[in-house]
Amino acid sequence: MKAIVLDAGQVRVEERPAPDLVSGEALVEVILAGVCSTDLELAKGYMGFAGVPGHEFVGRIVSAPDQPSRVGQRVVGEINASCRRCETCLGGFERHCPNRTVLGILNRSGAFAQILALPLANLHALPPNLSNDRAVFVEPVAAAYEIATQIPVAAGRTLVLGGGGKLGALIARVLRICGALVSLRGRRPEALAPLVADGFPIEEDSPQPRYDLVVEATGTSDALGEALRWVRPRGIVALKSTTAATSALDLAPVVIDEISIVGSRCGPFAPAIAALAAGLLEPEKTIAARFSLDQAVEAFAVARDPHDPSRRKVVFDIDA
Amino acid sequence: MKAIVLDAGQVRVEERPAPDLVSGEALVEVILAGVCSTDLELAKGYMGFAGVPGHEFVGRIVSAPDQPSRVGQRVVGEINASCRRCETCLGGFERHCPNRTVLGILNRSGAFAQILALPLANLHALPPNLSNDRAVFVEPVAAAYEIATQIPVAAGRTLVLGGGGKLGALIARVLRICGALVSLRGRRPEALAPLVADGFPIEEDSPQPRYDLVVEATGTSDALGEALRWVRPRGIVALKSTTAATSALDLAPVVIDEISIVGSRCGPFAPAIAALAAGLLEPEKTIAARFSLDQAVEAFAVARDPHDPSRRKVVFDIDA
Repeated sequence: MKAIVLDAGQVRVEERPAPDLVSGEALVEVILAGVCSTDLELAKGYMGFAGVPGHEFVGRIVSAPDQPSRVGQRVVGEINASCRRCETCLGGFERHCPNRTVLGILNRSGAFAQILALPLANLHALPPNLSNDRAVFVEPVAAAYEIATQIPVAAGRTLVLGGGGKLGALIARVLRICGALVSLRGRRPEALAPLVADGFPIEEDSPQPRYDLVVEATGTSDALGEALRWVRPRGIVALKSTTAATSALDLAPVVIDEISIVGSRCGPFAPAIAALAAGLLEPEKTIAARFSLDQAVEAFAVARDPHDPSRRKVVFDIDA
Repeated sequence: MKAIVLDAGQVRVEERPAPDLVSGEALVEVILAGVCSTDLELAKGYMGFAGVPGHEFVGRIVSAPDQPSRVGQRVVGEINASCRRCETCLGGFERHCPNRTVLGILNRSGAFAQILALPLANLHALPPNLSNDRAVFVEPVAAAYEIATQIPVAAGRTLVLGGGGKLGALIARVLRICGALVSLRGRRPEALAPLVADGFPIEEDSPQPRYDLVVEATGTSDALGEALRWVRPRGIVALKSTTAATSALDLAPVVIDEISIVGSRCGPFAPAIAALAAGLLEPEKTIAARFSLDQAVEAFAVARDPHDPSRRKVVFDIDA
C-alpha cells in the first residue's frame, strides 16, 4: 500500500505492506484523513516518532474476521487501542491504558496510508447523512467534548486561549453547544474573524474579568502562566496542549486562589458524531486544501504555513 | 499590649496599641497561639510581611459592641476577613475575597499578641469539652478538611507526601476520617513513626502503585514533579504548600494522563471543631514546647529546628 512515512524529520511517500490483521481488529480502507498540529509536531520529532502518522480519518471496513457483518461499514475510529484487561481499562479509563498503542502516534501505523488497522471496538459506524468531509473532524471534536466530561461547563464564564487555532475554534464551538458562555483570545484577529462572525466575543486586556474556566489551546509553552492570569479564585484551567511546559512557574497563586489545573486529551466519539450529524457544527468549512498521499511534502508545508496556520485545515483524499 | 513583631527578618517583642475596634468586629484576648510553617516563612520575608504574625489561636471575646452577648465566649477564628459584598463573596467564596485581610498574614495584626481583632462572623464559639490545647489546632485541621470540600476522597487510594510534617500528619488523619485509604511518604522515618503506630502504611519506591489522589504537603519546591510520579491517569494532585514552585516542569504528562492539579488552602471550621470535640483527632499530643510572648526569639528558633521540625509544634501561652 501507499503510505506517508516520517523518519528523522523527513516526510516521504513509500510503498509498504498493509498492517497485519490481528484478533479483534479490522482493516480499514482510508477515505479521507486530516492533518492535525500533533502530526506537525511528530514530523519535527515529538515523541521520537518514526513511521506512518495520521489519526483523524474516515474509512471503510474491508476485513473483519471477528465481525464479518461489519465489512463495508463507513467508520471513524478512536485512536487509543487498549488491552481492555488491565486495572486502568477495567476501571473505565481505556484511553489511559498503560499498554495502549495509539494510531499514528505510538506503536501503531496511522491513517496517512491506504489501509490502517484498529480494534473493532474502536470503530464507530457513521450515519448516512454525515459527510466524509464533516466526519473527518470527529476525532478533534471528541477531544473538545472531553473537557465537558471532566468539568461541568454549562453556564460557566469560559475563556478559550488560542481560540483562533484549529482545536481552539472547535473547543469554543463545542463548549458553547454544551452551555458555556464562551469568549476568545488569540494572537491573530484574522483567525478569530469567523468566530466573531458567529457571535463569539473577543476578550480584551482591560478591564480584566475573571473566568470560571480558562481553556488553554494555544500550543505555546508559556500558556499556563497566561491562563492563570484570567481564571477566578476556585476556577479551573483546562490544558489541551502537550506543549504547555512551565518555565519556573510560581505555583503559589494556584494554592492561594485554589485553582484547579485539568489536563485534557482524547474524548468520547458518541457526542461528537451526534453533534456533527445534527449539524450543530460545520467544521468542514475550514478545510483549506486537499492533497493526495503523493503530495505529502507539499501538504505538510501548507499545513504548517506560518502566515495563517490556524485556518489551514489540510486533508488527504486517499481513495480519490 | 505585648506583641511579637516581624520586621526585615528580625523577630522581637514590643509594646504596641491594641487593634482598633471597627464595626462588625470583636476584640479577642488571646489565650493560646500556635506557630505554623507559614509563620516561619513570614519571618524569612515571605509576602514581604512586616508586623504581628500568628493565625492559629484560641481566645476569649472581650469587646463586641455589635453582639454584646458574645463577650466572654471562648472562640477560634477564621483568618480571612472578607468584605462580604463583592462578587466573590456573594458567590460563596468569602475566603477568596479580593478585598480580604488575613490574620497575621495580610494587612491584619495577628495572634502572637495579647489582643487581636476579627469580624464577629469569623469567630466560632467552642464547646466546653474542647480544650485550649486541642482547639488551637482548629485552623490547620480546617485546612486539611478543605481537601475534602474540593475532592471526593472517600474510598480513594491516597498518598500524602510530607506526611510526617505538621500539616501533612493532620491531612493524613483527616482524610482517613473522611474515608480515604491513606498511605504516607516522608523523608524522616522518625517523623512518620507516630503515624505508623496508628496504622498508616508507608509507601516505598518499588513496586510503584498509582494513587487516585496525591496530596503534596512537603513545603519543598520540587514537590509537584514528585507528586506526578505517584498519581494514576485521570487522578488528582492536591497542592497544599505555597512553596511548590515548578522549575521548568514538563506539563505534557499532565495533559496525556489527564491529571488534575488542585490548589488547596484554608478550610471550613465547622467540621474541624466537630472532629476535635468528638475526639477523632488528638493533635495536642504533638505540642512539643510552650513559650511566653517574651520568649519569641527562642520559640521561633525551636520551631525551625532543622533536626526535627516536623514534631516541634510550638505554642505561645499568652494569658499565662
